[in-house]
Amino acid sequence: MGMADFPVAEFEHRLERVQFAMHAGNIDAILFTSEAEIRYFAGFRTLFWQSPARPWFLVLPSIGKPIAVIPEIGAALMGTTWIDDIRTWASPAADDDGISLLSSVLGKFVRIGLMMGRESSLRMPLADFNTLQANLRSASFVDVSPMVSELRMLKSSAEIEIISAICTIASNSFENADTLFYEGQKLNEAFRAFKIELLKQGAEDVPYLVGGAGESGYEDVISPPDDTPLKKGDVLMLDTGATLRGYFCDFDRNFAIESANDAAKTAYATLYTATEAALDIARPGATCAELFSVMAKVIGSNSSDVGRYGHGLGLQLTETPSIISFDETVLEAGMVITLEPSMMVGEGKMMVHEENIVIRDGMPQLLSKRAAPELPII
Amino acid sequence: MGMADFPVAEFEHRLERVQFAMHAGNIDAILFTSEAEIRYFAGFRTLFWQSPARPWFLVLPSIGKPIAVIPEIGAALMGTTWIDDIRTWASPAADDDGISLLSSVLGKFVRIGLMMGRESSLRMPLADFNTLQANLRSASFVDVSPMVSELRMLKSSAEIEIISAICTIASNSFENADTLFYEGQKLNEAFRAFKIELLKQGAEDVPYLVGGAGESGYEDVISPPDDTPLKKGDVLMLDTGATLRGYFCDFDRNFAIESANDAAKTAYATLYTATEAALDIARPGATCAELFSVMAKVIGSNSSDVGRYGHGLGLQLTETPSIISFDETVLEAGMVITLEPSMMVGEGKMMVHEENIVIRDGMPQLLSKRAAPELPII
Repeated sequence: MGMADFPVAEFEHRLERVQFAMHAGNIDAILFTSEAEIRYFAGFRTLFWQSPARPWFLVLPSIGKPIAVIPEIGAALMGTTWIDDIRTWASPAADDDGISLLSSVLGKFVRIGLMMGRESSLRMPLADFNTLQANLRSASFVDVSPMVSELRMLKSSAEIEIISAICTIASNSFENADTLFYEGQKLNEAFRAFKIELLKQGAEDVPYLVGGAGESGYEDVISPPDDTPLKKGDVLMLDTGATLRGYFCDFDRNFAIESANDAAKTAYATLYTATEAALDIARPGATCAELFSVMAKVIGSNSSDVGRYGHGLGLQLTETPSIISFDETVLEAGMVITLEPSMMVGEGKMMVHEENIVIRDGMPQLLSKRAAPELPII
Repeated sequence: MGMADFPVAEFEHRLERVQFAMHAGNIDAILFTSEAEIRYFAGFRTLFWQSPARPWFLVLPSIGKPIAVIPEIGAALMGTTWIDDIRTWASPAADDDGISLLSSVLGKFVRIGLMMGRESSLRMPLADFNTLQANLRSASFVDVSPMVSELRMLKSSAEIEIISAICTIASNSFENADTLFYEGQKLNEAFRAFKIELLKQGAEDVPYLVGGAGESGYEDVISPPDDTPLKKGDVLMLDTGATLRGYFCDFDRNFAIESANDAAKTAYATLYTATEAALDIARPGATCAELFSVMAKVIGSNSSDVGRYGHGLGLQLTETPSIISFDETVLEAGMVITLEPSMMVGEGKMMVHEENIVIRDGMPQLLSKRAAPELPII
């Protein structure tokens, strides 16, 4: 049975912060349906979310501890968390898959918060949500996405410690690039070798590994690998979201195979300069829009179609805020973000560069080991 | 750039089948928001779904090919699929994250299908869905979960080939149990060793690996591993959902470390007998409820709180149908399912046993290599 990822005080602190915001927003309770939030507030961590068969609920009242309303199969694991009040039903159910039980728990609340905004999903059947709304005729559902995202943006020192550890594991894995990757290796074999290396270095899982290879750059940054062999002169990029105790790193590295052309070297240097510019101003008080702006200035007219130059990072691969022109989120000490400028390199090719940092009073702290200033040739 | 997982004819066939059902159900178009369905109908496969930052849409009209309505970052990868009509927007967006674009595509349809039922989620912000509904005032949304689930239950021979291949990879990995697992090994190190073995044997990813260890049995079956060392007499269980080209295997194996007590041996034999009973009747025409019933009869009063004894399997770890008392789905040749009986073994301990099969005319075909009839001691 898994150990708790954090001491109880961590969860008490998270609860205190959200309840403070709930009182300010006049929210009586929040209903959570999604993996990230149920893990954040209850400490319930399992890969079982891969199965869509059963819904899971956490009700967080404005006073008192959260109440888990979950399928019986999860009772034992939930019992190991700091949650005391665990209500279960036999799921899957023929007709009523937890909805009347959930309705009874929510029945006394009038203004119920729900994640409805940016980056959220409703992780339960919409038909069941409609039934729930009908059951709770006197209640209204209000969006708490901004409130909850804002709380999650600020990481505790315990969270930063874990993210730092997985970033170090990924950095150590990338350090072995010259033994892992070689001319003639199929791209999917390069991916496989890197996943194994990450696990050997201490990663618990590698839920995310994307990348590409090509002369000067690669065609996109979200594809699974094919079996094309790496050629001399290719730029190989691997972008990994490996995890430790459910927390992600998220950064990439570029390597040239045997040699690199000038276009690749120049693009790499430009992206390096862009992250330097962002690192120079990533301080409490600066905004995400300002980070975007200094990177965009370095990249000029060669911007890619990725849409943003970084994002929050934590128990999800990407979290709020976005490093983008319209995100006016003000940086605070304790935020963990990625700096991820990307650019086009000639017709239909792109390059991307990424670092993970934590905002500190003064200079930011790099969690990923800083990439080499010039494109490494392996 | 990833290769297509299937020839175009496979997708044409999927489209034909769903459009036939749409005509019968008087559905003008279906809106898909979720990974599984967008992969099934478009062939769009990426780990980028790990990022919740952007919504993705596929509109499937009752006549003609599907239309992708997606963030710009996905245009290149979607361009490698069989989809021709790809509409993109710059995402994340300050205010309108694809909703007016999606509204314009859906504007001409009156009855719009949406996955709203069992096992579905709304993989877009609920607030945006409410805006979409307001934009499409003359349209009504109707649940197509049963229709789509029913189509996906029947696997093509190309799908079965991939699932069979990943089952073989997992079977080969389990064959090496006696060199991978040993007394004194920490449980999380056993998990790590098994993940690496799966990758070496040819798995592309290991999105799901759960399990447990203990005398007679384990406390639950969805926990992440802790660092408790394996002891002599422990039953070690590993349950893996490894993937190949995005398709899952899902089965477990039990091993006794050095020795096994009688309770463990008896429970193992009971579960083996239960799967034998299910294999004996798993034929076209039998129902899921009947499969459940023959297994429940073998297990008797020792049933666990898992709630079901198997499920569908394919591009998700678990799919419909459920092997449960109330699921009257009639088995057909080409369905891929798991048989997964579980039972209590004394106070608070359980054991689970799982096989993957494809329903054929006549006897079912085992995709996992049949477990040993007696608890293997390693």
